This record gives sequence, structure tokens and C-alpha cells, in this order.
Amino acid sequence: MNMERVERMLKNLEASHADAQILINDPWSIYYLTGFYADMFERFCGVLLARGKEPVIMVNALHQLPEYENARVAYHTDTDVVAKAIAQEIDPAKPLGIDEVMRSGFLMPLIERHAASEFFLGSSAVTAARAIKDEEEQNLMRISSAANDAVIADAIQLVHEGVTEREIADQMLELYRNHGCNAFSFPPIVSFGANASDPHHEPDDTVLKRGDVVLFDIGGRYRNYCSDMTRTFFWGEPDEETTRVYDVVRRANEAAEALIAPGVRFCDLDRAARDVIEQAGYGEYFTHRLGHSIGLQDHEPGDVSLANTDTVQPGMTFSIEPGIYLPGRTGVRIEDLALVTEDGVEILNSYSHAPITLRDS
Amino acid sequence: MNMERVERMLKNLEASHADAQILINDPWSIYYLTGFYADMFERFCGVLLARGKEPVIMVNALHQLPEYENARVAYHTDTDVVAKAIAQEIDPAKPLGIDEVMRSGFLMPLIERHAASEFFLGSSAVTAARAIKDEEEQNLMRISSAANDAVIADAIQLVHEGVTEREIADQMLELYRNHGCNAFSFPPIVSFGANASDPHHEPDDTVLKRGDVVLFDIGGRYRNYCSDMTRTFFWGEPDEETTRVYDVVRRANEAAEALIAPGVRFCDLDRAARDVIEQAGYGEYFTHRLGHSIGLQDHEPGDVSLANTDTVQPGMTFSIEPGIYLPGRTGVRIEDLALVTEDGVEILNSYSHAPITLRDS
Repeated sequence: MNMERVERMLKNLEASHADAQILINDPWSIYYLTGFYADMFERFCGVLLARGKEPVIMVNALHQLPEYENARVAYHTDTDVVAKAIAQEIDPAKPLGIDEVMRSGFLMPLIERHAASEFFLGSSAVTAARAIKDEEEQNLMRISSAANDAVIADAIQLVHEGVTEREIADQMLELYRNHGCNAFSFPPIVSFGANASDPHHEPDDTVLKRGDVVLFDIGGRYRNYCSDMTRTFFWGEPDEETTRVYDVVRRANEAAEALIAPGVRFCDLDRAARDVIEQAGYGEYFTHRLGHSIGLQDHEPGDVSLANTDTVQPGMTFSIEPGIYLPGRTGVRIEDLALVTEDGVEILNSYSHAPITLRDS
Repeated sequence: MNMERVERMLKNLEASHADAQILINDPWSIYYLTGFYADMFERFCGVLLARGKEPVIMVNALHQLPEYENARVAYHTDTDVVAKAIAQEIDPAKPLGIDEVMRSGFLMPLIERHAASEFFLGSSAVTAARAIKDEEEQNLMRISSAANDAVIADAIQLVHEGVTEREIADQMLELYRNHGCNAFSFPPIVSFGANASDPHHEPDDTVLKRGDVVLFDIGGRYRNYCSDMTRTFFWGEPDEETTRVYDVVRRANEAAEALIAPGVRFCDLDRAARDVIEQAGYGEYFTHRLGHSIGLQDHEPGDVSLANTDTVQPGMTFSIEPGIYLPGRTGVRIEDLALVTEDGVEILNSYSHAPITLRDS
């Protein structure tokens, strides 16, 4: 159990709810504290933190944990009433912070049993701690994105006449493994031509043809820390509008990245990129927020959007990913990860933003 | 929108909560009703059903849905307050059933806004409808498991001297595609020797060696319907205890399968298999429930365990998967899917239960 991280969470919690306890349910938050990860599906795993008490890890006995010096493991089985097992560990006289991701199926029976004096969403205490990457984490984020840069350089070697999106996507995991990653951050997006106009397109049997854009939105996990980048290439010379759109997206990306420094608001980063795109007349085709926080999960709480008036702080890592999507025609997105430093920003991806044509016309 | 399925859910709901509405949040339940699937991660998608009202699909505008004849689509965006958008659709004067899997982060703000007169866990109305597969679904479940039988026959061709678990696992997706499946039901488990004593072992770089068991626990999706089966093979003659354990597991599997018929309790199926294993002296090494329901998800509510006193009904599909796990030594599991018929059972897997040795000693 990483007690320094426990302490940061308890401090965050107490700032809003004095004398509260917190039940952490998110598997990655549990990993962050314990080094133990298991996606439990319909089974339960939770970590209960309370000031002055030893942390308790509650887990289905199907998962056997190591012994912890500074935490107690409380097992339950498939035949136990889970809410009862959880309630036994909670102090009913104190408020309980719970996790955003906790299933209603676990929460509702706790409410009905009056397992705590009050229930409130306490995730922000956890996510605020996780949002500020410590030195060890910053280093892993750097290595992870460096691997991603190397993978994208390898990936363009897979692009050739007659290839399908799926054929490329199917080879990506091996590229990540070659660069020390154990898994994807998310299933790779490989989009040709008009498919790139759907930001969430899944690789299919579309065959590459001359004049297509080739969009890669890919990421891997290095010791569980996620990378995530997008580059859009050209297969043969692009048409005039695609060339223009590419330039707009590149400038939008760079306008936002140039602005990042402690104290700047997330919404102002989104605004800066969106302004570039709106001024070029493509505002309605930039259909999503500018970015999202990232770390042990590809998407962590804290989005880079007009709605988020929080300020960025040293140690935060998030994506900057403006895009323009012309339905049924083409799409361009350029995405990097940013790490906020004491006095500015470190862009974790070094792969070029320049327009790159992968074949002669 | 499949109105026959909507009607079954509303009927189930009204049996326990007259005049209630229900908010469905599970992406597979939404797919079951609408044919639309999207894993939304931190974004929201929900279907609101209420007697006498047109169903409403609430979804983040990042996902554009088709037009529905018999349902309304209500879009919100990343910058909207999601709880407000949801609350607008709910009748505040009526009770609201919510989904087990709904995130607390969506539920708590609805409770705080008094968006309904009462909140209760209503998932069982949804899962009870989904548990009884209709004719179309039964047919897809049959095809999916037939594909799984074919895949396991192909998979044993990949077993050879010097191969690693990971090398085999990496080739599995192609086998599923060859047999018409679009994806895994779950990441394949390939376990050699002592690794098979961990029921949830993940394929790693372990090299096959003579005397090992080779356990495959694998499944694919055919038009989104999941298969799931386990077979345990031998690489060279097994030792005496493994031979004995295999025979016990096989008999436990067949004892439970023989018992399946409408009206039998899930717990009695578990008991039948467990009795065989306990009588052979291995009770403590059968560490999990006998099985789980399956359909659009590999694990659906309704487990085959000592705790589930519900009776099985025609149209239900679930796994029967007894196992014996000798820590650090070996493990054996044999799993089939069962479809309950009007007067008995159809075992969806036809691949042999006989002990099969893949190489000469």
C-alpha cells in the first residue's frame, strides 16, 4: 500500500468532508494504491480509507492478494451477501465517500442498510490525487509516449497498396510489444479516407486507395501507463481541402500546446484550439472536446473542454487532440500528450506534426 | 426498437413496482432493445421506458444514432450537465428503476435532484427479459458455440514442442474470424501445466513441456452472441493424479448437465457437480461457482451457484464449468454452454469430454 498516496487522498477528502471515510472501487485507483489490479466485472473489490485506521482491501476470494504490511485484506466469497461484507467494514456513524464508477448494484444496498451516516460522491479526492503524477509516474508516462512515437514510425511501414485497415490494426500489438509495452491503451484506430470523418471509426476491411488520408489514433501501456497519439498521413498527394484542413488542425494543436502552463484553465486551452478552427470556417466540424486526462487509464477524469474551468497544475498529463471531420469525405486529427511542468509544458510526443505523404502520386 | 422486448421488460417491472419507469444504462441491454451498441466509458447513454410513453434514448451527441420509428433520441453534448439532461426526461412523480451497472456518478446527482419519487434497483426487470433467449437469440447462441467447437479443434493444431501460451493466444482471433466470429467473448485463457491451477491465468511466455496439461478457456462473438467453453488436454501422458482429477471433473460436469430441465434450481446444479468433486476428496480445490448465465455478455446476471435458488426456465443459457485446481501443480476444467429447452436441455458444445493426449510420451 502506497501510504503517501493514501495520505494525499485522505487530505483531499477532508478538505471537503471532515471526518469522512472513503470507499474506492475503481480498479485502477485500487492498483494505484495497492499495486493489485483486477477487473472484477460483476464481482466486488474495494479499498476503504479512514483517518487513523488501517486501510482495508475487500475482495472476492477468487483473487488472492499478497500480504500487505500496512493494510488488511478482507475476503468474501461468491456465496456471501456482498453488501453485508462491505457494510461490516464501514463506520455507520460517519459519512462515506464513494466512487463515481461504483455500480449502483453495490451502492443501493449500502444506502438501504444505512451503512454510513451519509453518502456522497468522493471520487474527486481520489482523482485529484491521481491527476498529479508523481516523479515515478511522470517517468513512466515519458517512456510510454516515447514508445508510441517509435510505434507510429513502425506503423507507417505497414501501409502499402491494397492493405486494409484491419490488416494494419492486427499487427499493432506486436509493434507495441517490440517497444516494451504489454498491451494497448485502447483498440487502435486506423482509418482510411472518408472513414476518418468518424472520430471513433473501428478498423474494417476498407482497402487503401490513392488520395486517402491514413489516420492512426493509437496508444500502448508501458508498465500500465498509457500513451495516446494521433497522426494523419496522406497516401498520395491530398486534395486542396484536405491540405487546408490539415494545416488548420496542426495550427489548432500548436496554439493550444503553446498555451499550457500552471494556472491556465482547461477551457482556455480548448478555446485556443477551437478559435483557430472556427476562424478557418470549420467550427461545426470539430465535434468533440479538445482532450482528456490520461495516466493509468486512457481517459481519466478532467477533460480539456469548454466546460472545465479548473486550472492545470504541474504533474498533470492530458491529450491535446483537435480534429476536423467532413462527413463522408475526410477527417484529420493531430494529438499529443502534454505533461505540465513547474513553469510550462513538456510535450511527451516528439513525432513530427508536418504533413507527410507516404507515397508518390 | 424491439417493442416485444420493451413490453417484456415493462411487464417484469410492473410485477414488482406498479406505475414505475425504468432507466436502462447497460450498453448490452441498450443494444438488446435498439440494435445500437456503444461502450460509453465516462459518457452517458440510457434508455428510459415508461408505460404509455414513447421510449427515449438519451445519448452523447458524439454518437449519432439512426432514426427510430418507435422511439425518440435525445442528444446531449460534452458541455451539458448530464444529470440535468437525464432528469428532463424522467417523470419526477413516479418511482424510477435503475440499472445495477449504472455508475454512482450518474445516479447520485439524480437522487440529489429528486428526479424521481423513489429510486430502486430495477435491473432484474431487464435481466429477466434478457435471460430468456427468444428464438432468434437461441439460434445465434447455437451458431456461436458451434463456431467455438470448430475453433478448439483448430486451436489444438497450434500446440507443439517449444510453443508458449502467448504464441497460441495471439493466433486465436484469426481462428474465430475464420469461423465467422467478429471478436472474442473474453481474452482467451491458454494455460500450461501448473499455470492451469489459477482459473484466471493470463497467457504468458511459459513454454510447453512434456507432462503439462493444456487448458483452453475460450469464446467468440457471433453477431454479438457469446460462446464460452473450456477443454483441458494433455501434452504427453498425464501423471496419475491428473488422470484422476480429469475423470472427477468430467463426471462433475456430466452430473450437472444431466440434471438440467425447467424447474430445477441453479443451486442444485452446482450441488450435483460439487458433490462429485467433494466425494472424490477434492472439494476444497473447486474454488468457484459452477457457472454463469451468458448471451450478449459472457457473464450475465444469474449465476449457477449454491446461493442461487431460482429455477431454470426454457430459453435460458448458462455455463457448466466445474474445475479442480491444485496450487502450483495442475488444474483441470471442463466447460460447456447449456440451453434449457421445454423439457430438458440442449448442450451447445459437442466437442468431446474424453481425455485427449496431444502427443505421444
